[in-house]
Amino acid sequence: MSRLRWGRLTIVGLGLIGGSVARGARARGIADEIVAVGRNAETLAQARAAGVVDACTADVAKGVHGADLVVLCVPVGALPGLVRATWPHLAAGAVLTDVGSVKRDVVAAAEACPRRDGLAFVGGHPMAGSERSGLAASDPDLFEGRLALLTQTPGTPEVAIVHVTAFWERLGSQVRVLSVEAHDRDVALISHLPHLAAYGLVSAADGDALTLAGRGFGDTTRIAASAEALWMDIFRGNRAPLLAALGQYREILARWEALIRDENWAVLETELAHARGLREKLA
Amino acid sequence: MSRLRWGRLTIVGLGLIGGSVARGARARGIADEIVAVGRNAETLAQARAAGVVDACTADVAKGVHGADLVVLCVPVGALPGLVRATWPHLAAGAVLTDVGSVKRDVVAAAEACPRRDGLAFVGGHPMAGSERSGLAASDPDLFEGRLALLTQTPGTPEVAIVHVTAFWERLGSQVRVLSVEAHDRDVALISHLPHLAAYGLVSAADGDALTLAGRGFGDTTRIAASAEALWMDIFRGNRAPLLAALGQYREILARWEALIRDENWAVLETELAHARGLREKLA
Repeated sequence: MSRLRWGRLTIVGLGLIGGSVARGARARGIADEIVAVGRNAETLAQARAAGVVDACTADVAKGVHGADLVVLCVPVGALPGLVRATWPHLAAGAVLTDVGSVKRDVVAAAEACPRRDGLAFVGGHPMAGSERSGLAASDPDLFEGRLALLTQTPGTPEVAIVHVTAFWERLGSQVRVLSVEAHDRDVALISHLPHLAAYGLVSAADGDALTLAGRGFGDTTRIAASAEALWMDIFRGNRAPLLAALGQYREILARWEALIRDENWAVLETELAHARGLREKLA
Repeated sequence: MSRLRWGRLTIVGLGLIGGSVARGARARGIADEIVAVGRNAETLAQARAAGVVDACTADVAKGVHGADLVVLCVPVGALPGLVRATWPHLAAGAVLTDVGSVKRDVVAAAEACPRRDGLAFVGGHPMAGSERSGLAASDPDLFEGRLALLTQTPGTPEVAIVHVTAFWERLGSQVRVLSVEAHDRDVALISHLPHLAAYGLVSAADGDALTLAGRGFGDTTRIAASAEALWMDIFRGNRAPLLAALGQYREILARWEALIRDENWAVLETELAHARGLREKLA
C-alpha cells in the first residue's frame, strides 16, 4: 500500500525544483499541508502569498517538525550536511528524500545517521529541469512525463521506496529504481557529460563562427545556457563517474579523428550509422 | 539592381533542400517557370503533379537549357562533377549556384570552368535543414528566418552576388557573404563538429544509460538522428577544417578533464561561465 496523500510535506529549498514540487503537490492535492524551508525570506513570502505553501521558516529543525515526507531540494554539494542537520529533528516514521543529480555522498550521509524511529531515506532524482532557475521558473507540471530515479541500497526499507515512488508518480513521473553506482555512472553519461560537451562546443566556436549559429547549434548547446555554479556542484559531486564518461567520449572522438585523418570513411560511416540508429529509438 | 523575379529557374536535385527551394519559389512567385532535374522519376512526377514544378527531366543538359538561374541541390560530393557537367549547357548570362555545406571543391570546380557568355557561379549554403530528408519533408518556409551563406572569390562578379542574395532574401533568409576559407572553417565549428559531437555522445551512452535519456539529452543529440550518408559526404568534403575543429574541441575537453582530475574547480568554473555567457547571447 503506497501513500497517495500525505499529512505534512516539507520542502527544503524553494528553487526551480523545490518550487515545482510544491506547486505540483498543491495542484494535485498530494499533501494536507505544505511547509517550505528556505534562506531567502522574500522567496518564502512570495510562495506563501501565492498559496504555494502553507507555512515557511528559515529553521530546518522547525520546518521538518511533524512532517511525514521531507524533500530536500538544495544543490548537490549541500545535501550531505543537510541530511545530517535534518535527521535528528525528523518525526518518527518520516520519510526523507532528495532531488540531487548525484547520489553517492547524500546516500552515504543518510546511511551514516543512527537508525531510529523507523526513519527512512530514499535517494531521489527527478530527471527534469530547465536552463532557467529559481522559484519564478517553477512549474507544477515540470515532472509530467519525465523519469524520476530512486536509489535503493540494502539498507533502504522497501516500503519507503513504495511511498516515494507513489509520490513522484502522482507528480506525473515514471519511476525507475537503481543502485547508487548505476545511477551515478548512467547520469554522468546521459546528463553530466552532455553538459560539459555542450559548454565545450560553444567554447570551440567562440569567435566569428558563433555568428553563424542556427537551430541545430542552438539545440545542441541549449544546456550550455545552464547556470555553471549548479553544474560545478554536480561535476564536483560526481567527479569519478564524470571522468570515466569524459574519458570514454574523448576516446570515441580520438578514434573518429584518426579515421578522418586516415580517410577510413567506411569504418566511420558504420560507427555513425550505429549512433544514428540508437538516437532514432529515443523520443 | 537585383532581380526580384526570374524567368526560368532550374533546380537540380529534389530532396529536402531542392524541394523546399522549389516550393518556396513557387509560393512566392519568384520564377515564371520552375524546372526540376532529378534521377528519381517517381519524385519528379510527384513534384509535377503537386504543381511544385512545371517541367522535369532526368537530363541535366536539357533541364538547364534556357534557365536564368540554376540551383544545384545535390550532396556535397556530387557538386564538383555536376558543375562541370552543367557549365557547357548553361544559357548566356545564366547564374549558377548551389546549396552545399562545404564550399572549397565546388567553388574550385566552377573556377576551373572556361569563362564564357557572362556565366557566373556563386557558392551558396542555406543554413537550414532537418534530421528528415527527401521531397516529402520539404517545406516552402524552410528558409524563413535562417541564414544563407554565399561565398565570394576575386573571380565572382558582384552582380551575381547581388542576384543570388536577392533570391535567398525572397525565400526569407538573411544573407551573409564570406570567403570560401572562412565559410568552411566556420561551418566546421558551428555545424559539422556539433554533428560529430552529438553522434559521439549517443555512442558514449550506448547501453543502460540511454534508457534514462530525457529532454536535455534529446535536444543535445537531436542532430545525431541525421542520415549519416549525407554527413559522411560533408565530413569528407571538409576534412581539413573538420580535423582542425575536432582538434580544438578535444583540446578543450582534455583541459577540462585535467582540471576535474586535479580538482581545479575555480578555473573550470571560469571557463564554463565564459561558455554560458556566449551561449546566452545566442537566440
